[in-house]
Amino acid sequence: MVKKLIGIDLGGTTTKLAFLTEKGEVLEKWAIPTDVSGNGGNIVPNIIKSINKNMENSNHVIDDFIGIGMGTPGSVNRDAGTVIGAYNLNWKTTQHIKDQIEKALGIPFFIDNDANVASLGEYWKGAGSKDSDVVFVTLGTGVGGGVITDGQLVHGINGGAGEIGHITVEPGGFMCTCGKRGCLEQYASATGVVNVAKHLSSEFTGKSRLKEIIDSGEEITSKIVFYLADNGDIFANQVVDRVCYFLGLALSNVGNTLNPGNIIIGGGVSNAGNTLLQPTTKYFQENAFRPVRDSTKIRLAQLGNDAGVMGAGALVLQSKK
Amino acid sequence: MVKKLIGIDLGGTTTKLAFLTEKGEVLEKWAIPTDVSGNGGNIVPNIIKSINKNMENSNHVIDDFIGIGMGTPGSVNRDAGTVIGAYNLNWKTTQHIKDQIEKALGIPFFIDNDANVASLGEYWKGAGSKDSDVVFVTLGTGVGGGVITDGQLVHGINGGAGEIGHITVEPGGFMCTCGKRGCLEQYASATGVVNVAKHLSSEFTGKSRLKEIIDSGEEITSKIVFYLADNGDIFANQVVDRVCYFLGLALSNVGNTLNPGNIIIGGGVSNAGNTLLQPTTKYFQENAFRPVRDSTKIRLAQLGNDAGVMGAGALVLQSKK
Repeated sequence: MVKKLIGIDLGGTTTKLAFLTEKGEVLEKWAIPTDVSGNGGNIVPNIIKSINKNMENSNHVIDDFIGIGMGTPGSVNRDAGTVIGAYNLNWKTTQHIKDQIEKALGIPFFIDNDANVASLGEYWKGAGSKDSDVVFVTLGTGVGGGVITDGQLVHGINGGAGEIGHITVEPGGFMCTCGKRGCLEQYASATGVVNVAKHLSSEFTGKSRLKEIIDSGEEITSKIVFYLADNGDIFANQVVDRVCYFLGLALSNVGNTLNPGNIIIGGGVSNAGNTLLQPTTKYFQENAFRPVRDSTKIRLAQLGNDAGVMGAGALVLQSKK
Repeated sequence: MVKKLIGIDLGGTTTKLAFLTEKGEVLEKWAIPTDVSGNGGNIVPNIIKSINKNMENSNHVIDDFIGIGMGTPGSVNRDAGTVIGAYNLNWKTTQHIKDQIEKALGIPFFIDNDANVASLGEYWKGAGSKDSDVVFVTLGTGVGGGVITDGQLVHGINGGAGEIGHITVEPGGFMCTCGKRGCLEQYASATGVVNVAKHLSSEFTGKSRLKEIIDSGEEITSKIVFYLADNGDIFANQVVDRVCYFLGLALSNVGNTLNPGNIIIGGGVSNAGNTLLQPTTKYFQENAFRPVRDSTKIRLAQLGNDAGVMGAGALVLQSKK
């Protein structure tokens, strides 16, 4: 019988789970709410219960599985299988996830941070096509990323590889939550798009629904900015162009360093599709060294919400090498 | 008997060669002039003759060697073992180096570009200490570089990995020979230092020997700028600070992407030592994400002119994996 994988994508609201084959075919896929009450002490027991229940329901046994992979927020110790500082899970102290899960289920367990795991998912079964090195950047509330060279995730000496959100794109620019200025995250995350819109608003003198909303004191979102840009709002298009300039500049620097086959853009902001992709590609190409410009492709992520569970499955295979 | 390696560092003026052990001990080291006459047709035959002669003199035979590695200028096809576009060698058409050398000597041959090979040398036996991922940047006439993750050189999909010299550090800035603007190479190579000095000169109004030289129309060099900076010239120190700002910014972007254990600065400009290293480190730290700043070290290269032959030897070991 073909050996199988379990993928877990742990999020602040929902935990997604899947049973996969070693080739990445999804056998079962489900989700449970993430119970963050009581310092998040129910999270891991709930995952264990849910896996046991779904094994029963689908006539699987422990021996069918060669490993469990998990993507998580927070700071991960991959060897120890622990997590700390995942504040949206109320995990403030060290959580011994690997110990808990291996003790309960008896299946080898592997863990990495969510951006790295999503990168691996897109590399394995999404826009990366597994054919070459891949860099993944996810534009959500913040900007995260992952780097894969020669089929392996790059972690760096202190887990800081893939921190593309903290590449300086505007020296002396907006203050970032990380304590330094001008980070990509402040320009190209969902909140970054809003920062850029508010900042440019005072200089824009023409007619714009976006500017009207900002001037009225109403809250705007990244989604509204892209929606208005798609509907011809001149100022909204200026904002999108500026956001894409910073994103394209940062990705060109990554491209000039690694020349990956694909740089993949995911996360909520990437739902803007071509409105984001086209100007970003233009600015990437303007700033990429010719051999890089001619070969590295900027692409949108393909797996959407499935990147996490797929990548978690891939993590098992990667760790088995 | 211990198997040995041959390292070749092919340069426009001199070709350096060495016999090494697998542990990187130098058994013999010598150099021959590079004869670039007649479209560089004598270069490879001269290398073959010189290796044969040194084998005789040192009582070595073909069977003592498991491989020959070479670092070369120009554009390399590693699989085919060919080079094209090495203009300082007068190699304008495709050169079948691997075929020539393997046919003449019967030892497996491996080739890569000179910046990658020097990176490997520093990783193996220099400032990299082989203990972690390494990024190498060489500040010479131009700015080159190499990236090593998990002990392996990263080439990228089109050989463009490590092109740190073409990271955009000043959007819309100095025009680069590559056709785009604001590349690090125009600010931190030997010619880049001169560019920055000339550019800033018109704004400086105080007393400075460096400004006097520039105003007199005499040529300046990177070496003169660092010499005067070391000797208290205020303007020269401003130039050095500006150069280091751009270098530190570019290296922080590389650091935020890869979080290597060491980023190693080599090449002629790095002879400036701490005068270059200290302000570069300061600007690196200002722009590096905290976990990166706390772990990635900026260091000066240690092997000097030996990085090429050492790295060429390491290339054999790397290719044998």
